[in-house]
Amino acid sequence: RISWISDIIVVVSPENIETMKTIIEKYGHKRVTVVEGGVTRHRSIFNGLKVFAENEFSSHLLQKPEVVIIHDAVRPFVEEDIVSKVVMAAKEHGAAGAIRPLVSTVIASAADGCLDHSLERARYRASEMPQAFLFDVIYEAYQQCTDYDLDYGTECLHLALKYCKTNAKLVEGTADLWKVTYKRDLYAAESIIKEKLSQQVCVITSGEETLAQVGFLLPESLKSQIKVEAISKSLSKNDSCLENIISGQCYNFVCVNDKRCAIQETQELVDMLEKSNIPLLCPVVLILVHLDISENNSFSIGMEDLTMIKNFARETKKKNILVYGLLIQYK
Amino acid sequence: RISWISDIIVVVSPENIETMKTIIEKYGHKRVTVVEGGVTRHRSIFNGLKVFAENEFSSHLLQKPEVVIIHDAVRPFVEEDIVSKVVMAAKEHGAAGAIRPLVSTVIASAADGCLDHSLERARYRASEMPQAFLFDVIYEAYQQCTDYDLDYGTECLHLALKYCKTNAKLVEGTADLWKVTYKRDLYAAESIIKEKLSQQVCVITSGEETLAQVGFLLPESLKSQIKVEAISKSLSKNDSCLENIISGQCYNFVCVNDKRCAIQETQELVDMLEKSNIPLLCPVVLILVHLDISENNSFSIGMEDLTMIKNFARETKKKNILVYGLLIQYK
Repeated sequence: RISWISDIIVVVSPENIETMKTIIEKYGHKRVTVVEGGVTRHRSIFNGLKVFAENEFSSHLLQKPEVVIIHDAVRPFVEEDIVSKVVMAAKEHGAAGAIRPLVSTVIASAADGCLDHSLERARYRASEMPQAFLFDVIYEAYQQCTDYDLDYGTECLHLALKYCKTNAKLVEGTADLWKVTYKRDLYAAESIIKEKLSQQVCVITSGEETLAQVGFLLPESLKSQIKVEAISKSLSKNDSCLENIISGQCYNFVCVNDKRCAIQETQELVDMLEKSNIPLLCPVVLILVHLDISENNSFSIGMEDLTMIKNFARETKKKNILVYGLLIQYK
Repeated sequence: RISWISDIIVVVSPENIETMKTIIEKYGHKRVTVVEGGVTRHRSIFNGLKVFAENEFSSHLLQKPEVVIIHDAVRPFVEEDIVSKVVMAAKEHGAAGAIRPLVSTVIASAADGCLDHSLERARYRASEMPQAFLFDVIYEAYQQCTDYDLDYGTECLHLALKYCKTNAKLVEGTADLWKVTYKRDLYAAESIIKEKLSQQVCVITSGEETLAQVGFLLPESLKSQIKVEAISKSLSKNDSCLENIISGQCYNFVCVNDKRCAIQETQELVDMLEKSNIPLLCPVVLILVHLDISENNSFSIGMEDLTMIKNFARETKKKNILVYGLLIQYK
């Protein structure tokens, strides 16, 4: 995702190495080397660093970088901006790390389980990730540090300070850098991803009068809540417009038509989505709206049409495209 | 909710006092006194404590309690167990507060924005709420403390230590005590509430053979995921069984029937729910499943029935009861 990062080392526990390799292959990730982790955080990071320095550790020694970034997988929402900031600061200071204000006051407890003292909240910060280091600084620190550090320590900035006299530059990070730790954090992460996916919707209508009217009214009423792209199929015979929308990472489509079963048109859209690789990353939602403009006085749909749509939806679901049908009576 | 708490003081900013009073009235909260907050946390807490001690501050002086609990509204998921623990500890030690392990390492920054030192994570804790104090201890502390404390301090345990030489007992709290601070925390809180609401479902079927069969199969397949209560209407002529389920705070009901439009039966359930006050706290979800067991080859529903159900749903929505209709063909 960030073009100026030359190599990505993923440190994984032995039992998850195969799963990780499958993920990397499935999503076509490039520049990635998988390395076996150690029993503690520091031992795992040290293993990752060795890939750039020790011949026997890796089948192909990677070129030693000037700056190395250390990040946790439990902080999935890291932006390029903060990565860039810590890297530039590390280049200048030798080490740098993202920080956040403390949410709660931090206290020290005495041996009897009572309060010893409380820290003045404004003077302290939570140390978050990403952190960046001149490779020589952090590798030197890991080589120098004791087994006690490797087994019980948690803070890379501390190692750089203790063993290389490097005072890390602290960079204010965004709230999204928090560590996904508890079940509630999974809930929050899920909602953030859903929010990002639902920022844009594309409304596709065919050109007939009533449909075009709906195709105009729907985007108008959605506009206040999300970014809406509206396309009239008859206007754009070639689909370069639709292709642009898809390549802009749109995950939501509403197709309005007056047929009971517009499988063929939908298939074309599904094909375009598949070619784009968009559904690989996250599920795409297609809502097929069948607009019933007849003067009929009852809602009904034949079993055959229903079965056809259900089978179609079942097939596209395998491609990570979720198809929903809506039958709406419109007068 | 906790019977042994005699008075609840809600400290609110001046502009929100009317809103808070409306909420208290709407939900019928008892034992509550609303007090105007100050410009800082400590000044607000002090205002709350004065209700028990200073005649001029409140129209009716409340009886001074032995122990007072201090809690934040931003920690909505506090359980009786932890409240009880800090109160018992405060009775013995004079002060007590909930703590949690630190999620991130805490560091001190130097004036130049670089790392000064990092704290050993295992020796420190995050100070959370609730906290409890002997009333005389915390009131004395607030009377003694300086304007600087009132304006810049955040930690009540610190005041008790500094001004009353009381070392608070620290009580390990649950993860749910976290402070709802960022947008992601609202997402998490919303999901936790939804999870709690969806722990139980009640399936109601009428007694006919096919229905009874579905009324048996549905609970069986749901059982692995949530707590299911199944009721057959014909078996229980009197509805004491249903009343018990409702009073057990069930928020989800699935009513299976073979009529297109079982408004009357549903109305009875809605009446019972309304009487119970359950829908006041959180929305109740009623899913009406119309089981179509005819040999018909098409799905259809008349506009009249549809309009009737829609109007019914619109009315019950005002009572915080959400009605959904499902038409299922069953062979």
